[in-house]
Amino acid sequence: MLLDELKNIVGPKAWTNDEAALEPHLTEWRGAVRGRTPIMVSPANTDEVAAVVKACAAARVGIVPQGGNTGMCAGAVPDDSGTQVILSLSRLNRIRAINVQDFSLVAEAGCILASIQEAARSAGRYFPLSLGGEGSCQIGGNLATNAGGINVIRYGTARDLALGLEVVLADGAVWNGIRTVRKDTAGYDLKQLFIGSEGTLGIITAAAVKLFPNPGATTTALIALNSADDAVTLLSELRVALADRIEAFELIGSRAFELVRRHIPNTRLPFESPYDWFILVEAAVDPDQEELQNLLLQAARLGTIEDAAIAKSVQEAGQFWRMRHSISAAEKLEGASLKHDISVPTDRINAFLSSGKHRIEERIPDASLVVFGHVGDGNLHYNLHVPTGFQELATQIVYELVAELGGSISAEHGVGVLKKTALLTYKSEQDLNLMRSLKMTLDPLKILNPGKVI
Amino acid sequence: MLLDELKNIVGPKAWTNDEAALEPHLTEWRGAVRGRTPIMVSPANTDEVAAVVKACAAARVGIVPQGGNTGMCAGAVPDDSGTQVILSLSRLNRIRAINVQDFSLVAEAGCILASIQEAARSAGRYFPLSLGGEGSCQIGGNLATNAGGINVIRYGTARDLALGLEVVLADGAVWNGIRTVRKDTAGYDLKQLFIGSEGTLGIITAAAVKLFPNPGATTTALIALNSADDAVTLLSELRVALADRIEAFELIGSRAFELVRRHIPNTRLPFESPYDWFILVEAAVDPDQEELQNLLLQAARLGTIEDAAIAKSVQEAGQFWRMRHSISAAEKLEGASLKHDISVPTDRINAFLSSGKHRIEERIPDASLVVFGHVGDGNLHYNLHVPTGFQELATQIVYELVAELGGSISAEHGVGVLKKTALLTYKSEQDLNLMRSLKMTLDPLKILNPGKVI
Repeated sequence: MLLDELKNIVGPKAWTNDEAALEPHLTEWRGAVRGRTPIMVSPANTDEVAAVVKACAAARVGIVPQGGNTGMCAGAVPDDSGTQVILSLSRLNRIRAINVQDFSLVAEAGCILASIQEAARSAGRYFPLSLGGEGSCQIGGNLATNAGGINVIRYGTARDLALGLEVVLADGAVWNGIRTVRKDTAGYDLKQLFIGSEGTLGIITAAAVKLFPNPGATTTALIALNSADDAVTLLSELRVALADRIEAFELIGSRAFELVRRHIPNTRLPFESPYDWFILVEAAVDPDQEELQNLLLQAARLGTIEDAAIAKSVQEAGQFWRMRHSISAAEKLEGASLKHDISVPTDRINAFLSSGKHRIEERIPDASLVVFGHVGDGNLHYNLHVPTGFQELATQIVYELVAELGGSISAEHGVGVLKKTALLTYKSEQDLNLMRSLKMTLDPLKILNPGKVI
Repeated sequence: MLLDELKNIVGPKAWTNDEAALEPHLTEWRGAVRGRTPIMVSPANTDEVAAVVKACAAARVGIVPQGGNTGMCAGAVPDDSGTQVILSLSRLNRIRAINVQDFSLVAEAGCILASIQEAARSAGRYFPLSLGGEGSCQIGGNLATNAGGINVIRYGTARDLALGLEVVLADGAVWNGIRTVRKDTAGYDLKQLFIGSEGTLGIITAAAVKLFPNPGATTTALIALNSADDAVTLLSELRVALADRIEAFELIGSRAFELVRRHIPNTRLPFESPYDWFILVEAAVDPDQEELQNLLLQAARLGTIEDAAIAKSVQEAGQFWRMRHSISAAEKLEGASLKHDISVPTDRINAFLSSGKHRIEERIPDASLVVFGHVGDGNLHYNLHVPTGFQELATQIVYELVAELGGSISAEHGVGVLKKTALLTYKSEQDLNLMRSLKMTLDPLKILNPGKVI
């Protein structure tokens, strides 16, 4: 019997079917989706993961790989059939190697992102992947969803940071693709298949990732402007003037900061007047040399920006960032909202924002918008409060506009369950067929994260 | 009849079976491989490429896609069966779009790399892919082989620069994956399949790529040192001290420069004494601020380096680079040599060099070594002159050592025909099986670049 076999593989303390213990693993963290499972197993190492997959494959039972369960699209929770086994990667949490001279690190899938950042820091290096859930999300999940976050503009997404992977395939075989070479054209780059496939083509058990030198002294500034187009212009000018030393360049709409000030204690904007848009920029330039300061003065003279506050200390920079990082929490305190995580080509951000606002106001009464995002990646979190009954229409308006502008309906949150229907609508038949044939090739029994993505 | 059909598709001036005209397209540029073909067709656009593929698929005839035919592994020439059709991408040479604010460019596959660099430059932007063949290689081939070159340390390989692709699939359907968004997690990232697969899974007809701001003022220096380990240490120290503003960091062995001075006019080293190793570094720092100068003075005091010459002008920097870029030409003038393009983790470069030298000297009489490469990528061009009869042994020694050190037997030159046997030896059965199943899925009739890679 499968359940007994699984219990034997992982040993007495590494499985549970206890309702209370399972609770946080059955529910997507915002509560939008709730599933059931006969058992959650927590293997201790790659061989145990492989044995679990082999047993489930023999029994034709679906497996849901789960990392920190911080995903935004319910990609890590089981469906409500009560048949899918949860495979937690949490105990695969060793950092196998840090190689300072090679600027590389090898970590098991269950390592918390923040602990990898910390391990790199302790070794005098920098791991740039950074996002809201970093205190609980796991590197395996980050790679399985090709996570983005705030530093993509300079360092790329999780995909760009991966040097090698170890993956358990659908038949329980272990594919050893752990290596740290930066150039490798000896055959197809197989790791690319698994990155961003949300556990539907294989289960990532370990990864080799790139490290970087610390960015050194940085200058942080909060900037006020009147249009998102000015933000794109400013970014373009700063990238040129600073030879690309921009670590982050975040757009924040006035309503997002309004919610932060309403719900989060000790937050205030450093400006007297109200403005429509704000930019939080962090540049890898020494604040004492006033490079960013001078460029912003010039931008103000030319009318690209309205006002700017340079952080005078690490503490003040931290306060600016705290406001940015509090947006999601403030939104949650304000009440449920309809979230969209979209991207468009950078130069079309303003077209998206103005047409989007116009179309929504035209067709949906009393809608209110919270917008923030990453200008350099064309990635906007476009969240709406709309009256009951208008949710579907609102999302349709947003996704249709994204499609018109050559963008993506899921920039960094993946597909999971929540965006599966939208994917069927907005991807071409050819894309879907290619995806289906990859799924068929790598997981013919359809036991890996069934019902997700495709 | 297929040939008539192909002639009809491309029209009278866009095909040839003339021996003299075909000559440069049948031979790998160093003459190592020579094939035959019944016809070369040069479609004018993507639809014609698709029609050619459809016709060949119906007739079960193999297609060899060809760009600039500058590859190092004979991946773009037909076999000697005389049945394979050459499909030249050269006429697909339009730059479809340059978007300055979006830092992106869309080019057809047949655009020469240098012309893309130039188009970016004219628009005030920078396209960093740079390699020896840039005056004749084409962007489609660069992406199909995941080209590397000298700027990988800062900007990554061709894969990292790709935002979107347009690909003709094995059944003649056109897959439109042209987009410029930087974050897209809506489904599997299908373009990754085609990058680096050398035309065996699909034919790239156009690509959207990332542009960058110009690196601005750079400081160029030629550095002398006694060991390759010191080179790795120096790079690590410079990456930290300069917050990663290293555009290139090239290692050159003394014998490589010896051949350059022997065969290339007007070349000389700026040092009095002889040294074993040299580094050519280009850093994105203003020479007037003497940042690199001061760091090199310090490295000299600590004994990491022996001597250094900072280029005092753009002309002098150009002279340093000319010596680096003349190595291949000088080698050719010296006589045929056995070339290896390998990579190892950065910190194992010295282990590779010293064990390699030792093992070769032990087993092969009168071997001489020319070594140069890209330290930041762990990528070495490791070329040998050995007596007749020792070639196979020499390559075996090199590849076995690479495998022991966790490296790649093909860092940036791909597989093509020349490294196919080695791939079978040095890749795991599992890697090969995964590659075979991808090939079977995407090209079940095996008509795309048959006999290459796998």
